[in-house]
Amino acid sequence: MHPDFLTATASTPRGDGVRDVTVSDHWNTPFGRPNGGYVLATMLRGMREELGLTEPLAASISYLTAAEPGVAAELTVTGLKLGRRVQTGQATLSQGGSPVAHLVASFGLRPPDGRAAQLRRPPQLPDPAACADPLQHGVPAVGIFERVEYRLADFPGWAAGRPSGDPRTELWQRLGDEPVTQWEALALMCDSFAPVALELGVGSSVTVQLTVHFFALPTSPWLATRLSTGRMADGFHDEDCELWDASGTLVAQSRQLAVELS
Amino acid sequence: MHPDFLTATASTPRGDGVRDVTVSDHWNTPFGRPNGGYVLATMLRGMREELGLTEPLAASISYLTAAEPGVAAELTVTGLKLGRRVQTGQATLSQGGSPVAHLVASFGLRPPDGRAAQLRRPPQLPDPAACADPLQHGVPAVGIFERVEYRLADFPGWAAGRPSGDPRTELWQRLGDEPVTQWEALALMCDSFAPVALELGVGSSVTVQLTVHFFALPTSPWLATRLSTGRMADGFHDEDCELWDASGTLVAQSRQLAVELS
Repeated sequence: MHPDFLTATASTPRGDGVRDVTVSDHWNTPFGRPNGGYVLATMLRGMREELGLTEPLAASISYLTAAEPGVAAELTVTGLKLGRRVQTGQATLSQGGSPVAHLVASFGLRPPDGRAAQLRRPPQLPDPAACADPLQHGVPAVGIFERVEYRLADFPGWAAGRPSGDPRTELWQRLGDEPVTQWEALALMCDSFAPVALELGVGSSVTVQLTVHFFALPTSPWLATRLSTGRMADGFHDEDCELWDASGTLVAQSRQLAVELS
Repeated sequence: MHPDFLTATASTPRGDGVRDVTVSDHWNTPFGRPNGGYVLATMLRGMREELGLTEPLAASISYLTAAEPGVAAELTVTGLKLGRRVQTGQATLSQGGSPVAHLVASFGLRPPDGRAAQLRRPPQLPDPAACADPLQHGVPAVGIFERVEYRLADFPGWAAGRPSGDPRTELWQRLGDEPVTQWEALALMCDSFAPVALELGVGSSVTVQLTVHFFALPTSPWLATRLSTGRMADGFHDEDCELWDASGTLVAQSRQLAVELS
């Protein structure tokens, strides 16, 4: 796992449910703001540590305003219900006294269970070595693009100024040479790439709400990633993300609603 | 719209962000507990009215414990960020001083926008008149089954004691003779039917977290409904729901994570 991930998502408990965070400026998008997946990972990790829990099941974040990179923040965590099977909490990240994002997440252990089913199949991508590295094709190695490695079977149409009209894509990504061992890294990777709605002519959009389901820690560093926008209308669009490991397991999935800015 | 929907989802403001609710016993599941979609609809409507907002965009509910039907409850609503484009609030429903469910929802007006896309197609179902009414096939007309009308092209395998192994189904549903005019009715209808994971041999499950995206008010009373469970493992499964109106518009979609009880 990229060592900066652990540093950048760390927070320090004050002992009263409030944790001190410095929002990193190493995980910015090209627009100069902290990536939403990074914000989610930081808040989720802080909640997990504050409540003494282990495995997240689901996390729903509402983005209230753009976080300021490189600036101190407060994470206020409260338990909503710490049940036997499932434990749920909420957290608010604030900067300068104003709320930046709000998270509700549920945690729980996964009992061994014989019943298993998987409806969808993993993306069929060429090997990462046979795919293009965006950094070799003019994408600047700054912010999140310096830290998450991507390999693309096809270059996005929007990147060449010709949106394809097809709001679907599949790509590889990894966060270091080893399989990630922190669930929060999966939250980051569900929201680490450019919105696939750019293929529909959207200029930029920001996430209103993002929900991640966590299924398993991956067995491989490279995760095959499937992105799609199912509906765009009236200034809003959704985006689904699936993360698959080399064993063919869907390790996490997410869905978000975003508002178009241009 | 079924007249009892407006009665059952009503709440009375006390003036301090707290609203009095009586959790109806008319919208129970066969297990004798209030349907989760009904609980969501009630909380969402209360939040919308308390904050003076109009159109929901996204709603994420965490179910903390089963609500008691026919019992008084308190809905505590707070605004998280009331922005120009998007307004977000949270609400907790409590009974007897204990939290039952927690909701975060975002609202906003939908500006006219020329860009529109829809990746998926509506279900191809026979006309409702050519489909089976479960009430004519031994399903008792009690609780939610008395109020939401269903029409099934195919009877579920699990209902005959033979789970099909295919966690997908499509069906019609409506809430009265006219198209629903309250967004909250769409929230209810996203979680009104039996879990499609029953086709995988699950005996019963309860929802941990449910997120609904609201796209449009429907033009028709009958909504074509598509349900699927994408992944089941380790005691948890997801469920996606799509609601389509007669004009071929995806009016709402939802995704939930549920924990298996048996």
